[in-house]
Amino acid sequence: MNGIKRIAIVGPGRVANHLAPAFKEKGLTIAGIYGRDADETTRLAKKVEAPIIQDIGKRINADLILLCVSDDSIGEIAAQIFPGNKAIVAHTSGAVPLSAIPDNLRRGVFYPLQSFSADKNIVWDNVPFCIEAENDDDVNMLGSVAERLSSKIYILSSEQRKSLHLAAVFANNFANLMFEFSEELLEKADINRSILHPLILETANKVLMQKASESQTGPASRGDVETIKAHRELLDEGSNLREIYDLLTQEIYDRNHHEKL
Amino acid sequence: MNGIKRIAIVGPGRVANHLAPAFKEKGLTIAGIYGRDADETTRLAKKVEAPIIQDIGKRINADLILLCVSDDSIGEIAAQIFPGNKAIVAHTSGAVPLSAIPDNLRRGVFYPLQSFSADKNIVWDNVPFCIEAENDDDVNMLGSVAERLSSKIYILSSEQRKSLHLAAVFANNFANLMFEFSEELLEKADINRSILHPLILETANKVLMQKASESQTGPASRGDVETIKAHRELLDEGSNLREIYDLLTQEIYDRNHHEKL
Repeated sequence: MNGIKRIAIVGPGRVANHLAPAFKEKGLTIAGIYGRDADETTRLAKKVEAPIIQDIGKRINADLILLCVSDDSIGEIAAQIFPGNKAIVAHTSGAVPLSAIPDNLRRGVFYPLQSFSADKNIVWDNVPFCIEAENDDDVNMLGSVAERLSSKIYILSSEQRKSLHLAAVFANNFANLMFEFSEELLEKADINRSILHPLILETANKVLMQKASESQTGPASRGDVETIKAHRELLDEGSNLREIYDLLTQEIYDRNHHEKL
Repeated sequence: MNGIKRIAIVGPGRVANHLAPAFKEKGLTIAGIYGRDADETTRLAKKVEAPIIQDIGKRINADLILLCVSDDSIGEIAAQIFPGNKAIVAHTSGAVPLSAIPDNLRRGVFYPLQSFSADKNIVWDNVPFCIEAENDDDVNMLGSVAERLSSKIYILSSEQRKSLHLAAVFANNFANLMFEFSEELLEKADINRSILHPLILETANKVLMQKASESQTGPASRGDVETIKAHRELLDEGSNLREIYDLLTQEIYDRNHHEKL
């Protein structure tokens, strides 16, 4: 089995701007960059010293064509790729099934589970890569590309990846929303937001040590009705924040008690 | 001004079991332990080589009487303390105002903002201590006790501390609930929960670098309706989890868009 040496990148956005330089640094060749936005495409091509691909409808000399495009354009863009290519055509999305890529291509998924910021470097070694393909050979080929960057490789089906993506929304987007709420409450009370940083770090670190359900504390899990009442008085009646407080408090209470709150 | 050298502990629970040994280690004297539960009281007294206080209605030879009791018993227990004591009488609660302690005592608050687990050691240096008292001298005295343990001292009013406590519920209890949901989704999909640990750590670390609102990513903040639809299909109609997903998705969407979802 020949390994993957040449990677073509389709879509010069945030994910590509993180992945392409990392591939290059690990000794892989960026076979070319394709993108609709000429400026962004040129910028990324220069950054990784790769040629610009003018037409993905023609044969591309690469072992892997990596689609770093938005979820809803994966199908449309993959359909433009020349079916005679020998390369694996893999997308990088958590939410989109393998089947979004037309079945006349050698389909794969290469999903790095991380929240990419434009301006922050990624420590790849800790990033879980989720791999899917249509046969073991292709899984192994995609897996060995991922192994150049990270030690955390997971082989997941499209169904599993869909659940994982939803779980990541809870763990990242929704947890971050809770941090937003807390910062707004502190700002209103004229308290520096850094006061909560040790607790936030401790909350995350505990999850690494034991299941989150075993770490739960606070008024709702204790059933401390007086404190809950005092909290609600701080939140405007009819506001989203009060509704969210009530719903999450009820949920934690229900998980820890049998009587009604 | 004489500093605090002798500390009496009322209530031999989790907070006392963390604080008392830390005080002793930093050169303070534990003047005595009082508690209703004889076994727990004896155990903590032995641990810190302190006498047991039999009656808090009599004079206690201490500079600080620290109430490490549950929120709703602070008022009742403080009312039993002999009013002729010279000691500051401080509680350790985030949610209870200074005024819960009778005004014939020298009242104070000494609130360590941390989630205490029975079996996990605290790194005190990072724990914010929130101090309140009726005059600057007492604030300074309580502050210098806190400074023996930590470099993070905050002087907050009862109103501020109430807001802080609510903010901590969002940042700790509610964020942890989000982690619980994500672990349950992973378990259902037969994926090891450790797959999300790097993302959870990254989520927390980002909050230390910039405001949470600047870190938000994901389908709701992008307005990615297709992915939201796919997520909802994974959640049972009418379930709490679906209701929470909808409410939090709507909130993130509203913060990032002007049109209706």
